[in-house]
Amino acid sequence: MNYDIKDINLAKKGALRIEWARNNMPVLDLIGKRFAQEKPLKGLKIAACLHVTTETAVLMEVLKLGGARLALCASNPLSTQDDVAASLVKDLKIAVFSLKGEDTQTYYQHIKLVLAINPDITMDDGADLVSTIHKAKQVSCIRYQVIGGTEETTTGVIRLRALARQGKLLYPIIAVNDAQTKYLFDNRYGTGQSTVDGIIRATNKLIAGANFVVCGYGWCGRGVALRAKGMGAQVIIVEVDPLRALEATLDGYAVMTMKEAAKQGDIFVTTTGDTRVIRREHFLLMKDGVILANAGHFNVEIDIPTLEKLGKKKRRIRDFVDEYTLRSGRRIYLLGEGRLINLAAAEGHPAQVMDMSFANQALSVEYIAKNYKKLENKVYKVPEELDRKIAELKLKSLGIRIDSLTLQQKRYLSSWEVGTQ
Amino acid sequence: MNYDIKDINLAKKGALRIEWARNNMPVLDLIGKRFAQEKPLKGLKIAACLHVTTETAVLMEVLKLGGARLALCASNPLSTQDDVAASLVKDLKIAVFSLKGEDTQTYYQHIKLVLAINPDITMDDGADLVSTIHKAKQVSCIRYQVIGGTEETTTGVIRLRALARQGKLLYPIIAVNDAQTKYLFDNRYGTGQSTVDGIIRATNKLIAGANFVVCGYGWCGRGVALRAKGMGAQVIIVEVDPLRALEATLDGYAVMTMKEAAKQGDIFVTTTGDTRVIRREHFLLMKDGVILANAGHFNVEIDIPTLEKLGKKKRRIRDFVDEYTLRSGRRIYLLGEGRLINLAAAEGHPAQVMDMSFANQALSVEYIAKNYKKLENKVYKVPEELDRKIAELKLKSLGIRIDSLTLQQKRYLSSWEVGTQ
Amino acid sequence: MNYDIKDINLAKKGALRIEWARNNMPVLDLIGKRFAQEKPLKGLKIAACLHVTTETAVLMEVLKLGGARLALCASNPLSTQDDVAASLVKDLKIAVFSLKGEDTQTYYQHIKLVLAINPDITMDDGADLVSTIHKAKQVSCIRYQVIGGTEETTTGVIRLRALARQGKLLYPIIAVNDAQTKYLFDNRYGTGQSTVDGIIRATNKLIAGANFVVCGYGWCGRGVALRAKGMGAQVIIVEVDPLRALEATLDGYAVMTMKEAAKQGDIFVTTTGDTRVIRREHFLLMKDGVILANAGHFNVEIDIPTLEKLGKKKRRIRDFVDEYTLRSGRRIYLLGEGRLINLAAAEGHPAQVMDMSFANQALSVEYIAKNYKKLENKVYKVPEELDRKIAELKLKSLGIRIDSLTLQQKRYLSSWEVGTQ
Amino acid sequence: MNYDIKDINLAKKGALRIEWARNNMPVLDLIGKRFAQEKPLKGLKIAACLHVTTETAVLMEVLKLGGARLALCASNPLSTQDDVAASLVKDLKIAVFSLKGEDTQTYYQHIKLVLAINPDITMDDGADLVSTIHKAKQVSCIRYQVIGGTEETTTGVIRLRALARQGKLLYPIIAVNDAQTKYLFDNRYGTGQSTVDGIIRATNKLIAGANFVVCGYGWCGRGVALRAKGMGAQVIIVEVDPLRALEATLDGYAVMTMKEAAKQGDIFVTTTGDTRVIRREHFLLMKDGVILANAGHFNVEIDIPTLEKLGKKKRRIRDFVDEYTLRSGRRIYLLGEGRLINLAAAEGHPAQVMDMSFANQALSVEYIAKNYKKLENKVYKVPEELDRKIAELKLKSLGIRIDSLTLQQKRYLSSWEVGTQ
Repeated sequence: MNYDIKDINLAKKGALRIEWARNNMPVLDLIGKRFAQEKPLKGLKIAACLHVTTETAVLMEVLKLGGARLALCASNPLSTQDDVAASLVKDLKIAVFSLKGEDTQTYYQHIKLVLAINPDITMDDGADLVSTIHKAKQVSCIRYQVIGGTEETTTGVIRLRALARQGKLLYPIIAVNDAQTKYLFDNRYGTGQSTVDGIIRATNKLIAGANFVVCGYGWCGRGVALRAKGMGAQVIIVEVDPLRALEATLDGYAVMTMKEAAKQGDIFVTTTGDTRVIRREHFLLMKDGVILANAGHFNVEIDIPTLEKLGKKKRRIRDFVDEYTLRSGRRIYLLGEGRLINLAAAEGHPAQVMDMSFANQALSVEYIAKNYKKLENKVYKVPEELDRKIAELKLKSLGIRIDSLTLQQKRYLSSWEVGTQ
Repeated sequence: MNYDIKDINLAKKGALRIEWARNNMPVLDLIGKRFAQEKPLKGLKIAACLHVTTETAVLMEVLKLGGARLALCASNPLSTQDDVAASLVKDLKIAVFSLKGEDTQTYYQHIKLVLAINPDITMDDGADLVSTIHKAKQVSCIRYQVIGGTEETTTGVIRLRALARQGKLLYPIIAVNDAQTKYLFDNRYGTGQSTVDGIIRATNKLIAGANFVVCGYGWCGRGVALRAKGMGAQVIIVEVDPLRALEATLDGYAVMTMKEAAKQGDIFVTTTGDTRVIRREHFLLMKDGVILANAGHFNVEIDIPTLEKLGKKKRRIRDFVDEYTLRSGRRIYLLGEGRLINLAAAEGHPAQVMDMSFANQALSVEYIAKNYKKLENKVYKVPEELDRKIAELKLKSLGIRIDSLTLQQKRYLSSWEVGTQ
Repeated sequence: MNYDIKDINLAKKGALRIEWARNNMPVLDLIGKRFAQEKPLKGLKIAACLHVTTETAVLMEVLKLGGARLALCASNPLSTQDDVAASLVKDLKIAVFSLKGEDTQTYYQHIKLVLAINPDITMDDGADLVSTIHKAKQVSCIRYQVIGGTEETTTGVIRLRALARQGKLLYPIIAVNDAQTKYLFDNRYGTGQSTVDGIIRATNKLIAGANFVVCGYGWCGRGVALRAKGMGAQVIIVEVDPLRALEATLDGYAVMTMKEAAKQGDIFVTTTGDTRVIRREHFLLMKDGVILANAGHFNVEIDIPTLEKLGKKKRRIRDFVDEYTLRSGRRIYLLGEGRLINLAAAEGHPAQVMDMSFANQALSVEYIAKNYKKLENKVYKVPEELDRKIAELKLKSLGIRIDSLTLQQKRYLSSWEVGTQ
Repeated sequence: MNYDIKDINLAKKGALRIEWARNNMPVLDLIGKRFAQEKPLKGLKIAACLHVTTETAVLMEVLKLGGARLALCASNPLSTQDDVAASLVKDLKIAVFSLKGEDTQTYYQHIKLVLAINPDITMDDGADLVSTIHKAKQVSCIRYQVIGGTEETTTGVIRLRALARQGKLLYPIIAVNDAQTKYLFDNRYGTGQSTVDGIIRATNKLIAGANFVVCGYGWCGRGVALRAKGMGAQVIIVEVDPLRALEATLDGYAVMTMKEAAKQGDIFVTTTGDTRVIRREHFLLMKDGVILANAGHFNVEIDIPTLEKLGKKKRRIRDFVDEYTLRSGRRIYLLGEGRLINLAAAEGHPAQVMDMSFANQALSVEYIAKNYKKLENKVYKVPEELDRKIAELKLKSLGIRIDSLTLQQKRYLSSWEVGTQ
């Protein structure tokens, strides 16, 4: 088996940490047990481009239990946990191609090595696998074999919808990101906690009393804002959508333009899925000592090339903290090279949250395996019944019991006759 | 002009309070100014069944400025502000039929008196107007004239969707409730604040430290939960939907069945839109001295007829507080006769929130007037551009400026090529 | 029996509301039961100057059960609940002199009528009774009889400490305000909830999204700030003490000078115990439509005389809302004539909080009765064991059980030998 | 120069991280600049037993700038940052004796090596230095030379007060912990953030939705509770003091006995300063998979010896996470061997908070140097003017301006004459 990882000897530590994650992923575990019996993925080859973390390892196990053959590369150059990669290779015999801190060239070589298995199904986190397939003329052999794919992130779904709108999408995709048990939880509670965690690990800064600017008030942004507020920050929201800006206002946050926020902020986090959200005109307005971090999928939200040009001096003052000294003498600190800070400087989303996201992945892959003949080359939602099922299993695993509607209540909801009494 | 109100002499006080509301409704005010010039409702008769509050009065003014002829009755027997009714009659010459504390019979008589104007358009808050029209054989003359209607509440929309599903809906309805500038704000921040306000006014109870049970974690429920938590309560959520139950859990609330909550709660609020949410089996488990309040549209969420039977003694101990002493000696306090507590014991939603909800009403009525020929007998959403426009106007009135996307950012969002760099 | 109240016929409503309060004051109720048996206040005459609310009525009952003879006047011209005054006179035969909305002259006449009983003990809320005694030459006959007094508020304690510092205090005072079971609860949770309640009742303004300025970050101020934040406001703190300003910052609030806050605020609340906190220079900077309210004891925190001069027009637009239109056309809304807004526009602190404050009052009066011969003319703290006892009773009444230290744990805490292991 | 550290080659990384801390400690930096000029500590030998972190390094620099000669050992076997120790030795020529993970024997040897410099002043964090001096008969030569000491923690102050009560304290101590600019900030915001940080780093657990038990509602406990709540947990407080239990209740937390909490909790944190707070009877009631962490100074709050006996199997599943499997099959996870989790698994308090704590240390040492002849063998508070000065400097460094009282306001506060107007 071909693979490219840092050090196979890290496998033991990785195995223990994967066990820890598995203990915290009861829904996925249950699915794994069923897969082991039913083998719904038998004979399928899956190419996965995901963050190589303990939670992803548990998903890989489950897919393997389901009968799939797997190859895995990283979906971000900085997010790989090398001990996990080692255990996946050694203990699970999965072909892994990923190294924490790999350069962009290696990153794309790894993608190609994963695609070399000639996958039936692709699993993406940011759509780099899909877009590589679509860009490559030479992989025309591949495209005819792929029966479907899944996509984990808001960013990836935006890219795939663009592809579909242009009529160029070559196979059906299930937008795992858009499952309620995914985006309402992973994007909000997962990104919220782990982004603040990543910033604290990188800087050991006190959040209380800081002016904490969050760019974007989507699901990720509101998660980050909520946790920053919970840690005692004064939160400022920057938005382009008037509805979200209004919600942020009534949620008790200060809302302003990026230019205004640039002058006031101490810590900045981007969560927009867009490019150059923090750029030249903003860098020049910032106070000495500000912290910049990105929680969006790609490292394009902060305009790093321009920051590189503006900085007359650059040095790494702490792990994951690069100091840029501008001509004015003011210092700007960029965290994790502008890559997903929760994966670069911390461990990404907690397993309890990924449990639901990856349950959606596993069930979506199974759905593709069973239904691919009926699917068109479009971006699909996760079927609602899967979503609801996952929520029920999760509640059960938490030991929480809820009510159900009485017959009379159901009838009342479907009638129109009874009014004011 | 025919009308039925408590006391015309209250008009002066009402007029001042309406002025106060108008000052807090800048978006509606702007629409009113345009209506006064364009007269888009000229010649139209509108029958409205809404809570007769200062905010509704401002909406009536705006519709009148637009050229409409109006008749108004209450959408709840306890929600009328008699001074507002007086001013509407005296100062605006609008036919109002509503009295705070009217009985159910009078309530429906008032509905009929309003329908007697032979309306072109109906405005509903709970769908009592629409359902009266649909029930009445004798009003067949009416149904052929109505060109469209609007509905303000979740409850009403549920009823109307049931009607539509059964193929019985006689004219098109715009579900104002489902506008984002409505339900995200009115149902959440409006109901949240005013429900807690209503409970405090009725009881002067300390919320801090109380076990505060919220039945239903929809938009209203999460508004109430958020504010109860903000006042220092320990909040318990009761739900039937697993996804919402899970959200409530991760939002930091205790989630349990109603039976379990019944034993622990000090204060209970229903926000479900369903019937008998708190019923016999729960009353019997409650602690001595509990408070029951309803924030859902109809007074059916708490099973009051059964409570009446269980109580061996009943007395009114404070305005809006009825004490039921059960056979066990335990006392249950029902607020505002189980009707919308924020309107029964307080003044309903603040004007700043109703500004958006009623801007949707005004613009939806205008939309019907202009487009009714193209509409089918279905429940429609508020057109998205209206929603967005209202959000923009509201932000502007608050003095909040936001960014817009650069060309490059727009292009990035519609591309799929650029990935990890 | 001499008395001066609004309408004796309100007694029935008052009696019910007092019963409601009593149900929420279990600690005071327990003390009342013991007093009824032990009669520790037998033969004592008590002059009380307190807010005439349902909770005060329960305290009066308890003192009467203890054997005292009582006369009561209001400690604020706007805080009297006339139905309570009626019930106290009719049902409890207590001499009450207070009318909601009385003018300042009547207010002081009432104080004199209360002092006419020639009290053994004074109970004060703001020290108006004590200071009247100390100012009056003609009451020299009185001063030799008073054996002690109590004071309920921060403001009053400040005044009494000033008296004591000048060596002029004529009899011992127990600073009930300084009991932990008083200021940590009443000033924080009580003032917090009831001030926000008073503002909402007076204005029906949406708190969410408002710029809410709190002047003073003492116990009252932080209570108000916490609740305003809990209702969704952006809170701004104005302080003169650097330590408190720093705490406010790390608690997540914006901290700035009054001049800066004057420009940004939508709603202003004073809680300083000092004079002219909001004054000419600030009025002139304010936005159109701002709301001013006071939660400090006296109506001097907002410089009303100057506001009267600045306003070229004044009218009452809602109950408890006076509109001042400045020369610039900008409008300032003053709530409750600048008097304690929680008592002017709402019902004051909830009974559950006053339960502890008034338990301190009752036990302090008993303490004076038993120990006055040992006391000097100083301001005393409430004895610690009373404080602790009240906390224990309160917890018990809430059904909350806590742990106690094991013997080993007590020993550990009193040793110094055991270190790092 | 004698020293005992892990690896001198780590100095470069340490130096950069110390620079990072210094950038975040503006108050201490200012003091350092003055010390460099005035040399107030010239000729003094200081023995310090503190957590060897970047912030402590900055304090050491300042003391050295002031003219002192220093020796430093760790105040906890797990809290040393080895790169910092290296830089202190190499770059600052300070005698450091500390290794991350040293055993208890080495720990005390290091203490003795530090005391071997024959200190004039001791700086303690937990009182291990002072108690070693007091226990040792053979160091009688030392005790006559020490002119004073400082103590950083609540735990240490409790031990020293016990010593003083027994009349055994050999020299004056300044309780730095009791400065308002210390305990209100460091114990609350510092311990709050860093404890939650430590738990997340060790476990990557989702805090949202967890039942998070905090033992002790002192300043540290309320900091931890506030941040756990801010991260979305349901917080349970265990207390022995009725007043604090009542505060916790009204702060919106569930309050219960440890036995009850043991059954419900998912994550437990001890912050009491006492011994065996979580013990046999509680271990046996816990759910499978619970997390135990300590944030109190010593590793005695969780009864680890008993846990060792109860566990039939023990293994380290992640760094800082030991899994104990009980006979029942249930697993208990102990973090950081029960030592201060914020220092064991994270970096301790943020520099911005330590800035104030260590400013108190530096100024207290200077105070001892200048005033030791006047001091008795007692535990002293930090002089109030130092406290206030530090708060002012900190505010200034944050760019926050506050008001000061007007003359009229000062006069008002010192008068008693002006009452209700």
